[in-house]
Amino acid sequence: MFAEAEADPSLSRDAFKKQETRLRTALVKAQYARLEAAERALVIVVAGIDGAGKGATVNLLNEWMDPRHIVTQGFGLPDERERQYPPLWRYWNALPAKGRTAIVFGSWYAPLLFEGARKHPDTDRLDALASSIRHFEEQLSANGVQLLKLWFHLSPKAQKARSKRLLASPETAWQVLPEDLLVQRHFDRLRESGHHAISRTDSPHAPWVVIPSADDNMRAVAAAQAVLHALQRGAIRVPAPGSTPAIAGRRKVLDKLDYRANVDKDDYENRLGDLQGRLARAMRDPAFRQRSLVLAFEGQDAAGKGGAIRRVTQPLDARHYEITPVAAPSPHELSRPYLWRFWRRLPRLGRVAIFDRSWYGRVLVERVEELTPAPAWKRAYGEINDFEAQLVGHGAIVLKFWLAISEAEQLKRFREREKSPYKTFKITPDDWRNRRKWPAYLAAANDMIARTDTMGAPWHVIATDDKRLARLQVLEHIVETVEKALGRG
Amino acid sequence: MFAEAEADPSLSRDAFKKQETRLRTALVKAQYARLEAAERALVIVVAGIDGAGKGATVNLLNEWMDPRHIVTQGFGLPDERERQYPPLWRYWNALPAKGRTAIVFGSWYAPLLFEGARKHPDTDRLDALASSIRHFEEQLSANGVQLLKLWFHLSPKAQKARSKRLLASPETAWQVLPEDLLVQRHFDRLRESGHHAISRTDSPHAPWVVIPSADDNMRAVAAAQAVLHALQRGAIRVPAPGSTPAIAGRRKVLDKLDYRANVDKDDYENRLGDLQGRLARAMRDPAFRQRSLVLAFEGQDAAGKGGAIRRVTQPLDARHYEITPVAAPSPHELSRPYLWRFWRRLPRLGRVAIFDRSWYGRVLVERVEELTPAPAWKRAYGEINDFEAQLVGHGAIVLKFWLAISEAEQLKRFREREKSPYKTFKITPDDWRNRRKWPAYLAAANDMIARTDTMGAPWHVIATDDKRLARLQVLEHIVETVEKALGRG
Repeated sequence: MFAEAEADPSLSRDAFKKQETRLRTALVKAQYARLEAAERALVIVVAGIDGAGKGATVNLLNEWMDPRHIVTQGFGLPDERERQYPPLWRYWNALPAKGRTAIVFGSWYAPLLFEGARKHPDTDRLDALASSIRHFEEQLSANGVQLLKLWFHLSPKAQKARSKRLLASPETAWQVLPEDLLVQRHFDRLRESGHHAISRTDSPHAPWVVIPSADDNMRAVAAAQAVLHALQRGAIRVPAPGSTPAIAGRRKVLDKLDYRANVDKDDYENRLGDLQGRLARAMRDPAFRQRSLVLAFEGQDAAGKGGAIRRVTQPLDARHYEITPVAAPSPHELSRPYLWRFWRRLPRLGRVAIFDRSWYGRVLVERVEELTPAPAWKRAYGEINDFEAQLVGHGAIVLKFWLAISEAEQLKRFREREKSPYKTFKITPDDWRNRRKWPAYLAAANDMIARTDTMGAPWHVIATDDKRLARLQVLEHIVETVEKALGRG
Repeated sequence: MFAEAEADPSLSRDAFKKQETRLRTALVKAQYARLEAAERALVIVVAGIDGAGKGATVNLLNEWMDPRHIVTQGFGLPDERERQYPPLWRYWNALPAKGRTAIVFGSWYAPLLFEGARKHPDTDRLDALASSIRHFEEQLSANGVQLLKLWFHLSPKAQKARSKRLLASPETAWQVLPEDLLVQRHFDRLRESGHHAISRTDSPHAPWVVIPSADDNMRAVAAAQAVLHALQRGAIRVPAPGSTPAIAGRRKVLDKLDYRANVDKDDYENRLGDLQGRLARAMRDPAFRQRSLVLAFEGQDAAGKGGAIRRVTQPLDARHYEITPVAAPSPHELSRPYLWRFWRRLPRLGRVAIFDRSWYGRVLVERVEELTPAPAWKRAYGEINDFEAQLVGHGAIVLKFWLAISEAEQLKRFREREKSPYKTFKITPDDWRNRRKWPAYLAAANDMIARTDTMGAPWHVIATDDKRLARLQVLEHIVETVEKALGRG
């Protein structure tokens, strides 16, 4: 894999000059074509041996292309803020819009490369890291983000010579970083780690390209050529994942709901106060400062999402929760993978995020209204499970509610809303239209629950014909789950 | 000011019920009218005596209006991330879009109220805080954000009684917060502090309304009425500030530039390396971790902004700087005050933000192309000076560059760009159009420099007919300013 690069090939000045004009012209042209089409973003991962000229190459790419449409992102060790979220959060947040290019230093490969370069790497951890990277890149590729990964490589001798040459003059010595000087001592391990990472994560949709880096001209041309090739390439079809299996016993759960149970008003007030008090206390438990709470509310129109959410937020400190109402995505949201906007609204540790409708729109309204092609929403079950698993893995408590109303009760509430002077805003032609598609939405919801009701992030189906009982049940699930997670009561 | 509220007026259940329907209907109607017009955002500041039912009222407003278009924001003491930016940064970041409503707890009044409630308040600090609030609110009001400030008030007796009532039952006891119980001991001071804050910051464009809060019904109706009134009200004209005076000796500085100086290539390479080395070392100085660097680049087309920026970034660590190319604002940027998008791209401590064009577009392109009415861009000089003063006050090192090219040299570079296969992208019909407006842009730039060349954030005018010399001068100004600020050399 590195034999060619370690032969330290070079390119004469004349050969370079000839290539330069061709490459610059083609790069700019390809960049503009990409911007105009705005079908895919390009993310270029920069990795490789330290002191191989990565930074210089990125400067060159910015010079050869139109830098206003390229963003260069450097990530270091996660800072205090970043540690409050799952590890991939910062990369999700920084995704460029379709048509644009991002160059990433300190990418999601850093932990894998670091582990691989240890004296005795933990192979389980290597496996887990490589697997999570493959999932991430597959998901990006399938959702409009093209990946190109550059590995800058050269022989140990050339690496040493380059640092020495730069250090020789005060005008260039600053280009040599402390880590560059450590490379020599561990070259074999770094090479081995790179080899492992590349072989485990190379794929047609997210290819690695090794850039021979000993010679400035060769490195520049090889990198530019790789970027050009990526810009010009059409979308690579990401292999469709196996369809997400339905979970045993969860098929069509919505078909057998009992809507008749109810609670009387006095009982309701008492139990509500009790549950809200428990929630208030749990949220102020010091143990919660290392956790977070994510609540997703879905359900038919008029099933009482808003009312239920208000009963949940009443006992919360306004500084500690955020409600995100989810409607159709805006243009700048549409230009990123559909989960992007949800990643941006995740709670930090000690906080609560409430979604009034959620990422499940992908397999509900987008499916039923045919806003998204079938392969994309079918793939979403797995993507969503993976997303929620990352949250749970980072300490989030995740609950999902499907608020179910009977057809008759919904009709009654629609009529009431039409009559009430201050509730008419809650009823729109869309609501009546959705009602006519009742069976299609119900089928979509049944499938959704069957495929995404996971141990870590379970669905709670609540019949809401009696609003009061429904609110108590929502609170009860939250309170019990949170108390359990915090080791209370 | 508080006499009426401390009389603890109440409203009967019947009177309340009558008001409720009217208010809810009118609130929803006004909210939707506002959303449709999308001319102004409404920011409601919630303050007052703790334990007066602020939280309950905000819940009620969310119930009475369409909560999907209201965002409730709670701010506590600034966290580690927030402390990296000027104090108002987090409020700027959270501004709602036009048409929408934000309710703010823990607003920019917190430091003023806290200082005012001390046993011996520092009157200089009180003055400074009140003055900075007035500036902030004036600026928001003038730029499409309407303000309403609610002060929840009641007698000490009623406050005590309310906490006692809630504490009596386990179902409501959690509503009483520790700070509510401290109110009694310091009631006089809290009242005095509120009185001071209100009298110093009440204005037609950002009015305070005192809400009698002892009685739930009265409090709800008074708050809803205040919000309704605000939603229905037309824009209040913010008094035009006195025009920003030109700084002595800075009038028409661009008219007397000498474009002939130059540097030879060898000399250039040596000095460039030396300056980049000094910059690299300064940026890695531990003292810089408590500072930040903000660079704004303006200048005529083809004056070499991109090339100069690249020479500045070469010695920087990619993880520590960000270049923001500034073009026409996007729709979600247009729906906030024009400085909003720049507040969002400020550097945290230890970082560098480079703006390739900047907030000065307000008084350059927006003025010359008549995209913004004259009163708005004239007001901008003062708003910009205030913005930069906040950055400098928080430790940022701010430099602004005007790269000036002669008309003849610009024509030469335009022609070269047209001929170069990889530079044609840099030349557009806009560039030729701007060139024909040369005198208008020059006049705007002269005015801009004369009015915003402040001690803390000076303009550096650089003649760029010789690109190399220009790059050296840019670097030299940065290096010298940074070294001085860090106490180096």
